[in-house]
Amino acid sequence: MKETFSPTFTGSGPLPKHPSNFAPFDFQPRTRVICGRGTISKVGMLVREFSGSRVMLVTDPGIVATGHPERAICLLRECGLETFLFSEVRENPDSRLISEATDFAHQNAVDFMVALGGGSSMDCAKGVNFLLTNGGTMADYKGYGKAPQPMLPSIGIPTTAGTGSEAQSYALISEAKTQTKMACGDPKAAFRVAILDPELTVSQPPMVAAVTGIDALAHALEAFVCLRRNPWSNSHAREAFRLLSLAFPIIFAEPNNLDARMAMLWGAHLSGMAIENSMLGAAHASANPITAHYGITHGIAVSLMLPHVIWFNSEVVGDLYQELSGQSDGAKFLVAEVDRLALMAGLPRKLREVGISKSIFPILAEEALQQWTGTFNPRPLTEDSLIQLYEAAW
Amino acid sequence: MKETFSPTFTGSGPLPKHPSNFAPFDFQPRTRVICGRGTISKVGMLVREFSGSRVMLVTDPGIVATGHPERAICLLRECGLETFLFSEVRENPDSRLISEATDFAHQNAVDFMVALGGGSSMDCAKGVNFLLTNGGTMADYKGYGKAPQPMLPSIGIPTTAGTGSEAQSYALISEAKTQTKMACGDPKAAFRVAILDPELTVSQPPMVAAVTGIDALAHALEAFVCLRRNPWSNSHAREAFRLLSLAFPIIFAEPNNLDARMAMLWGAHLSGMAIENSMLGAAHASANPITAHYGITHGIAVSLMLPHVIWFNSEVVGDLYQELSGQSDGAKFLVAEVDRLALMAGLPRKLREVGISKSIFPILAEEALQQWTGTFNPRPLTEDSLIQLYEAAW
Repeated sequence: MKETFSPTFTGSGPLPKHPSNFAPFDFQPRTRVICGRGTISKVGMLVREFSGSRVMLVTDPGIVATGHPERAICLLRECGLETFLFSEVRENPDSRLISEATDFAHQNAVDFMVALGGGSSMDCAKGVNFLLTNGGTMADYKGYGKAPQPMLPSIGIPTTAGTGSEAQSYALISEAKTQTKMACGDPKAAFRVAILDPELTVSQPPMVAAVTGIDALAHALEAFVCLRRNPWSNSHAREAFRLLSLAFPIIFAEPNNLDARMAMLWGAHLSGMAIENSMLGAAHASANPITAHYGITHGIAVSLMLPHVIWFNSEVVGDLYQELSGQSDGAKFLVAEVDRLALMAGLPRKLREVGISKSIFPILAEEALQQWTGTFNPRPLTEDSLIQLYEAAW
Repeated sequence: MKETFSPTFTGSGPLPKHPSNFAPFDFQPRTRVICGRGTISKVGMLVREFSGSRVMLVTDPGIVATGHPERAICLLRECGLETFLFSEVRENPDSRLISEATDFAHQNAVDFMVALGGGSSMDCAKGVNFLLTNGGTMADYKGYGKAPQPMLPSIGIPTTAGTGSEAQSYALISEAKTQTKMACGDPKAAFRVAILDPELTVSQPPMVAAVTGIDALAHALEAFVCLRRNPWSNSHAREAFRLLSLAFPIIFAEPNNLDARMAMLWGAHLSGMAIENSMLGAAHASANPITAHYGITHGIAVSLMLPHVIWFNSEVVGDLYQELSGQSDGAKFLVAEVDRLALMAGLPRKLREVGISKSIFPILAEEALQQWTGTFNPRPLTEDSLIQLYEAAW
C-alpha cells in the first residue's frame, strides 16, 4: 500500500524540537499579488495606477512565440501606454545582456518595467532597473541594498511556475567574464505587482513545466531546512511544498487543468516568498557549477542533486524532513517523492545520463564551495562531502 | 485509538473539488512583521524610522497592570520620543471612547500611534487614526476606503494571540447609541509594523489566553470555508489552524513555553491575514448579538456557536472540512477538536451555562441576520436556521 502523505502533526503532539523553527524574523512584504484566470488583462490599468507611461516589456524569444507578449502589448497600448518590446533575454542572463537591455531602456526613455516570462526575464528586468536608475554595472549591486536612488515601478508576470522570482527583491545575474552568479538585491527592486495568470502557463512545453516545477519544489525543500529558516519561511515553504506536490502530477496528466496550473503558480510564488526571507542550500550550491560547465538547465541540475542533498542533510535535520512529510522516515519519503515526480516528468536521474565526467568532480566541488547559498545548508559542506554528493548523483 | 490529525492530502490525490478554492484574488500585503522574543525592544527605533516624534501609546488598564506599557514608555523615551499614554481602552470599544481618545491625541499633537494590548487596543488606535487625520465621526468610515487624507504611521503590538487585528486594515468600533458593530477599513489604517513578541503574551491570565486563542482558531475555520475564500486565504487559514491547534494545548500545560507562545502569536497573525483577504461567517454573526445583550466575552460567544455552525455548514462545505482536517468525516473531527480545546481551557460549552434564556432566541436571530459577516457564510442564513443554531448551542 502506498504510504499516505501527511505533511503535518498529530493534533495533540509536541511542538517541533528544532530550536531554529522559532528563530526571530523581520519581514516586510512588498508585492501585491493578483492571481486568477485572465488577470493579465489588468496589466494596462495597473501600469497607469503607478503613473507609468513608457513601458519596457522584457521577455525572451521562446515566449514571443507563444503570443503572450503580443497580447500584453495590445493590452498596454489599449490603455494609451507607449510600449517597447525587449525580447532578447537568454537563460541565465549575464551582465553583458543587462548592459544591452539598459541601453535599449535609455534610448526609449522608459519609466516602467514589465517582465513577462520565466525567471530569466524577471532577473533581466530587475537588472535593467538597477542600472537605469542607479548607473554603474551589475557588480556594483552584488549583495543587498546598494542602490541609493529610487527605482522604477515594475510588474512581474510569470509564464512558468518555477523560480518565484516575482516574489523576490533579488536579481540573479552572471558576471559575463567568469559566468559566476551574482545575487543583486534591493527592496526597491521587488515588483510592485505580481500577476499570476494560470492561462499563461498552459503554453509551456511539458519539459519546461517539469524543470521549473521541480525547481520550485526544491526551493520549498531547501528553504524549509536551511540555516535561515524561521516561522515565516517555514509556513510559506510548507504550504508551497503541499501545493506543488499535489499539482505537479496533475499538470502532466491534464495539461489544461487550470486549477492545477493555479496551484502550481501560487505554490511557486509561496516558495519564492519563503526564500525571500530565508535561503537555499546545497542542492542549489552543487547544481550551479554543473550548469556553468555543461550548460545543463538549472532545474535539471537541481533535481539531480536534490535527493542526495536530502540524504546528506538528514543526519542533522531528519526531524524537519519528518515534520514536513508527516512520515517517520521523512528523508526516505521525500527522496522517493522527488524521484517519483522527476521520473513522471521524464527528467534524467543520474549525472552520467547528462554526459558529466567523474573527473570534473574536484572542480565542481571547489566551485560549489564558493557558492553563497551553500553556506546556509544545515549540514556544513566540505570539498570531500561535495565530491561524495556528486559521486552519489553520478 | 485516537485519530491522527492530518490536515492535508495524499501525495497523488486529486485537487480539492470546490471551485472557489481557486477563486481569483488580489492582495496587497502591507504590514512588516517582526517576530521573536524580546522584539518589543525595537519599538523606539522603528518609530524613528517613520520619523515619529510624539507617540500616543494606546492600551487598557489590565495591560497597564502587567507592566508592559511602562516598559514601552521607557523604550520610546530612551529613543528621545515624547510619549503620551492613553490607557482607557475598554472591551468592544465604541464611538464615544474613540472620540475621547481622539481629543487626547489632539491635545498632545501626536504624530505616531502605538497600540499595545488585545484587539480592543488595536481597534481603538485605528479608530483614533481615522478621526485625527480625517475628522468626522466613526460612522463616516463604515465600509472601506472612506478616508481621503493620509493617516499617521502606526505600530501594533499584540499581548494576546487572538484577533490578528495587527494584520488587518479594519477597526471594529461599536456605535455608542445602538452598540451595533461597525467595520471601518482603509489601506492606510493598517499598521506599518506588527511586533509579535511572545514574551508579552506570557502575562495573559489563562482564561484570556483560552478565549482569545479559541477566537483565533475560529477565524481560521470561518475564513477557510467562507464565500470569499481563495488560494491566499486558504493557505494562510490552513497554516494558522495547524499552528493554533498544535500550540493551544501546550500553553495550558506549560504557560511559559515561549515556542508555543510564538506559534500561537504567529498563528493568530496568519488567521488575521486570512480574514483580511476573505471574511468570517455564521459563528461570528451569531455570537455578536450574544455579546451585545449579555456582555459575554466575544471569544466565549464564538466558541459556543462554532461547533454548531460547523455542523450546519457541513452540508455544503463538508469537503472543505475534510480537506482541512485530513479526516473522512471532517466536520465531526473539527467539532470534536474545538470542544476538546475549549474544555481543556475550561470554557463553558452551552448557552444555558452562561445564563442565556431561550426566549431571546428570536431577537438574537433577527440581529444575527443583520450582521455583515453572516452574509459570507457558505450556507445561507435564515431566521429559522439561526434559531435552530441557538437551540443546538443551548
